[in-house]
Amino acid sequence: MFERINHVGIAVDELDAALASYERQFGVELLHREVLEGGTIDAALVRVGEVRLELVASREPDSPLGRFLSKRGPGMHHIAYEVDDIEQAMAKLRARAVKLIDESPRPGIHGTRIAFLHPSSCLGVLTELVEPAS
Amino acid sequence: MFERINHVGIAVDELDAALASYERQFGVELLHREVLEGGTIDAALVRVGEVRLELVASREPDSPLGRFLSKRGPGMHHIAYEVDDIEQAMAKLRARAVKLIDESPRPGIHGTRIAFLHPSSCLGVLTELVEPAS
Repeated sequence: MFERINHVGIAVDELDAALASYERQFGVELLHREVLEGGTIDAALVRVGEVRLELVASREPDSPLGRFLSKRGPGMHHIAYEVDDIEQAMAKLRARAVKLIDESPRPGIHGTRIAFLHPSSCLGVLTELVEPAS
Repeated sequence: MFERINHVGIAVDELDAALASYERQFGVELLHREVLEGGTIDAALVRVGEVRLELVASREPDSPLGRFLSKRGPGMHHIAYEVDDIEQAMAKLRARAVKLIDESPRPGIHGTRIAFLHPSSCLGVLTELVEPAS
């Protein structure tokens, strides 16, 4: 049911330093920056060929991302699969007994609609569905 | 310097169960299975569009992957970027002060040549270079 990976999410301590490091070392290209989740996440999309990396830094220690960073430190955070119709994908996954974190889609970076699946249903991987902006 | 992501690595407890789960839930397609690293890793490539996931299970608790799984449990493990010439890419990264785990390329899955970069140089992400089989 997934045709492509939209992005891979990486949790970072501080966004500017992380971007500078990835640009200098690997030559990745910045596509977009945005503050997300009611001001609690500082996010940037960078491009590596057809796949994007979403670098996310926490602006609020007592948030899911803040707690992830406190516990595990910076590193790989989530995989986001692209879907055409997020409600339909969520319904299919529910029918396959996949546990969803979000009961309905919510706004993601760059005008997308997103929903997270629970890592316990996805081999320990925090998994996101992304419906691109139309 | 990276044109594409070759695969995203996911550490799993047991390969058959993990494959069955991802096939049933997400409809991913199995491409290839192989035992790697001198018999210590049970690996499978599955396809999601143009990107592959490499599911890796440890057959040896006292190996880097075995210790990762004991400490952190199953979940996201590494990102692999594709390069045309792995020696050239390693030389460029050394010149940019990126710390390498492997001083020279070694065999990866499906006839590839690979080398790992140190997470401390890559925002906490275990990062792999992959030169596809020619």
